[in-house]
Amino acid sequence: MAKKTKLKMIPLGGLHEIGKNMTVFEYGNNIILVDCGSAFPDEEMPGIDLVIPDITYLRKNKEKIRGIVLTHGHEDHIGALPYVLQEINVPIYGTRLTLGIVEHKLKEFHLQDIAQLRVVSPGDRVHLECFVVEFIRSNHSIADAVALAIHTPVGIVIHTGDFKIDTTPIQGEMIDLTRLGELGKEGVLALCMDSTNVERAGYTMSERTVGMSFRDIFKDCEKRIIIATFASNIHRVQQIIDAAARNKRKVAISGRSMINVISVANELGYINIPSNVLIDLEEINRYPANKVVLITTGSQGEEMSALTRMAFSDHKKVEITAKDLVVISANPIPGNEKLISRVVNELFKKGAEVIYESSLAEVHVSGHACQEELKLIMALTKPQFFVPVHGEYRHLCIHKELSELMGISPQDSFIMDNGKVLEFSFDSAKINGSVPAGKVLVDGLGVGDVGNIVLRDRKHLAQDGLIVAVISLSGDNGELIQEPDIITRGFVYVRESEDLMEQMRDVVCDAVFHSVNKKARDWNSLKSSVKNQLGQFIYDTTKRSPMILPVIVEI
Amino acid sequence: MAKKTKLKMIPLGGLHEIGKNMTVFEYGNNIILVDCGSAFPDEEMPGIDLVIPDITYLRKNKEKIRGIVLTHGHEDHIGALPYVLQEINVPIYGTRLTLGIVEHKLKEFHLQDIAQLRVVSPGDRVHLECFVVEFIRSNHSIADAVALAIHTPVGIVIHTGDFKIDTTPIQGEMIDLTRLGELGKEGVLALCMDSTNVERAGYTMSERTVGMSFRDIFKDCEKRIIIATFASNIHRVQQIIDAAARNKRKVAISGRSMINVISVANELGYINIPSNVLIDLEEINRYPANKVVLITTGSQGEEMSALTRMAFSDHKKVEITAKDLVVISANPIPGNEKLISRVVNELFKKGAEVIYESSLAEVHVSGHACQEELKLIMALTKPQFFVPVHGEYRHLCIHKELSELMGISPQDSFIMDNGKVLEFSFDSAKINGSVPAGKVLVDGLGVGDVGNIVLRDRKHLAQDGLIVAVISLSGDNGELIQEPDIITRGFVYVRESEDLMEQMRDVVCDAVFHSVNKKARDWNSLKSSVKNQLGQFIYDTTKRSPMILPVIVEI
Repeated sequence: MAKKTKLKMIPLGGLHEIGKNMTVFEYGNNIILVDCGSAFPDEEMPGIDLVIPDITYLRKNKEKIRGIVLTHGHEDHIGALPYVLQEINVPIYGTRLTLGIVEHKLKEFHLQDIAQLRVVSPGDRVHLECFVVEFIRSNHSIADAVALAIHTPVGIVIHTGDFKIDTTPIQGEMIDLTRLGELGKEGVLALCMDSTNVERAGYTMSERTVGMSFRDIFKDCEKRIIIATFASNIHRVQQIIDAAARNKRKVAISGRSMINVISVANELGYINIPSNVLIDLEEINRYPANKVVLITTGSQGEEMSALTRMAFSDHKKVEITAKDLVVISANPIPGNEKLISRVVNELFKKGAEVIYESSLAEVHVSGHACQEELKLIMALTKPQFFVPVHGEYRHLCIHKELSELMGISPQDSFIMDNGKVLEFSFDSAKINGSVPAGKVLVDGLGVGDVGNIVLRDRKHLAQDGLIVAVISLSGDNGELIQEPDIITRGFVYVRESEDLMEQMRDVVCDAVFHSVNKKARDWNSLKSSVKNQLGQFIYDTTKRSPMILPVIVEI
Repeated sequence: MAKKTKLKMIPLGGLHEIGKNMTVFEYGNNIILVDCGSAFPDEEMPGIDLVIPDITYLRKNKEKIRGIVLTHGHEDHIGALPYVLQEINVPIYGTRLTLGIVEHKLKEFHLQDIAQLRVVSPGDRVHLECFVVEFIRSNHSIADAVALAIHTPVGIVIHTGDFKIDTTPIQGEMIDLTRLGELGKEGVLALCMDSTNVERAGYTMSERTVGMSFRDIFKDCEKRIIIATFASNIHRVQQIIDAAARNKRKVAISGRSMINVISVANELGYINIPSNVLIDLEEINRYPANKVVLITTGSQGEEMSALTRMAFSDHKKVEITAKDLVVISANPIPGNEKLISRVVNELFKKGAEVIYESSLAEVHVSGHACQEELKLIMALTKPQFFVPVHGEYRHLCIHKELSELMGISPQDSFIMDNGKVLEFSFDSAKINGSVPAGKVLVDGLGVGDVGNIVLRDRKHLAQDGLIVAVISLSGDNGELIQEPDIITRGFVYVRESEDLMEQMRDVVCDAVFHSVNKKARDWNSLKSSVKNQLGQFIYDTTKRSPMILPVIVEI
């Protein structure tokens, strides 16, 4: 490799957004991929199930890719794997729990047999051609998370993945600050760091504080306790199980993803369930209220989740009553506030006691580092260059400002964007060019077949509905053979709008009459004049703009 | 009136929701209406502009209604007036600013000439047949708000409207606690109180604290300052103008509703603008950055608002640069979090400094009372019965619990619902029956013509789009005359899905062929078999369920 070869860092997701994290590191003929995440669709994407990164660049450079390295098992870091793997089947490296969760996911796509999963442990170093990837123990809201030190021909790049500093973690140890400090002494070329919580001053509390709240809540509680939390938060689940066992309560699990993750974690020994504690959901009614705890999904008020179904009396096995204490052990992900609020109101209607965001009890802590933790990592690693990642634009800006406080000069810190190429030599860094990047929408089985036009039409249809005008014309003279038919959906309640329907038919007749007189058989111009005239009439009459579809049948 | 006549309190809106506040008080042949508000549509109501209460009950009892009494000029208290007034034209009582805003609104509907607006002042008592309505000075995030003491034949009912206790208000005086205390001594039958902030402990800060933050922000600031806030918050606007004048800055106003409210407030003397401070928006570029303040709408990230257009470079007169400091002087209304976050990110991209929710500066305070204030009002008025109003279900429950702390026994406090009838005698209260109540949706010019079926169709269309199958059949033998035509919108990108389109045509042909063989000319059964077979095929192929519209043309 020529001396002048540059290391390229190319984020394909995770910049200017929270979600679908994926970063390319490229040196000469070698590429490694850090994480392979998906994102949730936003309100501008009706009907979409999932968003994944555009991997055009990976597709074009397939033969260079040496492996995919995973930092942890959250969807925004592994959710795109089933889609990427179908095109790019390279070895996947991750810790035991991370790959346990990946394996489970791949089974749903019948991909488990083709996948090359390689388990690593914190402290391990993996050689991938010119890269050596070192896995560093970390703390996050899922067990077995790691940060990465990527040893490259031009220097060491540290990628934190998602992290916090937890001095009293539930299982395992604190993030390996010593190793990060050693790397700092050795010399770190660049630090790529999680920006999710950069707006918050101070420190993120330890996961253990939530356990102390659970202890208080469980003590002398005579009610059945139902706790909703993120399925992947194994440590939260462990603390609930511990509190239950201490109080001689049985634990039942509800919600598909909760059952999946707990069974994977249990198989792999990441969760410690005392014998005789777990009971089947069917059995809960055999025990008195104060002898049962239910751990469930639905902490975000998701429509089909177990807790939501319980709240709306739509769950087959669990009925909420005044004998229940429901704890929502999570903060709302932005955008979910109203969904959660709806569920809380329903729980109150059933007479349940509810501990949620507005309550004083500390029943949730974040998994992401706040400002003081971020500064600590900068101080330990002393990077030459700084690249804030995992954040919306404002998070990246604020993170850059924070790095200035730590002595990193503004020209050495880079606000990247998905697709932008950041080139490093051993003593320089600059943004140089870009590669294709963006959102690929997954809708049902379709990957990428829903784009802007389809979304625009969906939003238009949602706003004011649809009017189909069926026009049967004579092939001989282009005249109407029968009265136009008007079909509407999502526009008005037709039975109470007969007059309007009649008027619309008249407008269409009129449009056809005049159009035919001008230019017979030019169906396109006829269509657009029906669209315009009917559209204008409807807007004048109702101030609405439904989608208008003229259908011409030539006979 | 017979001694046994009961006072009825019937909320038609504002219960189990935040918004569209409207309450009926009825005694014998007399009705008064407190407030007449609208609500914002939620995500379950695509395309809807506004939600107003169902006024069937008022329509039926038209001749009994003696007047509409308004507590203040916010949309959730006056927004339904233009619609209600067209059917029920009774005198409307409110303070000067409230009616100034109402008048402006009625002009947009060309109703100003028929409306009977009656200005009152705090302290006034208005006789409406058997009711005497006393207007009591209050504090809220809009000037000239009042609480009501409704003197009825069975006792005094206090309705707080929206309120807080501000010991240092910007204009006028503190809420008239003395008068509330006097009424308490006299004996209060029932207290109906604002529940919006009941989840929050402590006190709501004074509006004046925001002014102190503005003072700090303006001091030595070399940037142009742009402040977004609620148009109706006259006191906030006053404080911005004061800070500007003190710092020799000119003030320009942007956003239609901001201009409207400020001009009404200015005309009526509710705002004090020193001469030579106000400039036209066109003129801002004639002044150096540190000599200008812009007050704008858009604090909720609303799509068409002035601030959003500025952020997205879509505003004709204002361009955001690194020389701008943008202050978002408002908290997100639940559901608007992501909209605001999007605007903040865009402002950061333009290099602007932004002070927003996550910043440490206190640039907003609520207009609603927290727990300690609510308790104070209970302690002063000592009501026999308590009715928490203006809140979602959980707010009402928590408010009821709070009232228990204050010595009101649970059976004397009532969790109402829209349409429920609460009957009072001088020493008793009970829920007895109900009247029609609910949501009436306003879409363009249509009021109530969009109901559940139309909304369901809009949501269906938004999820997976639409497929129209045009089938031309012979009137003689019911056979296909030409190949079916398939039109899709919001389903897939058609140009890249030719195969799928071809297969869909085949499925339709097949359905017609088999259906015709079975039962010729039964177009309804043909339609449903096309729907079923095409729907099943599409689901199996794509895991999507678009709306399917078979159009049959008989020739």
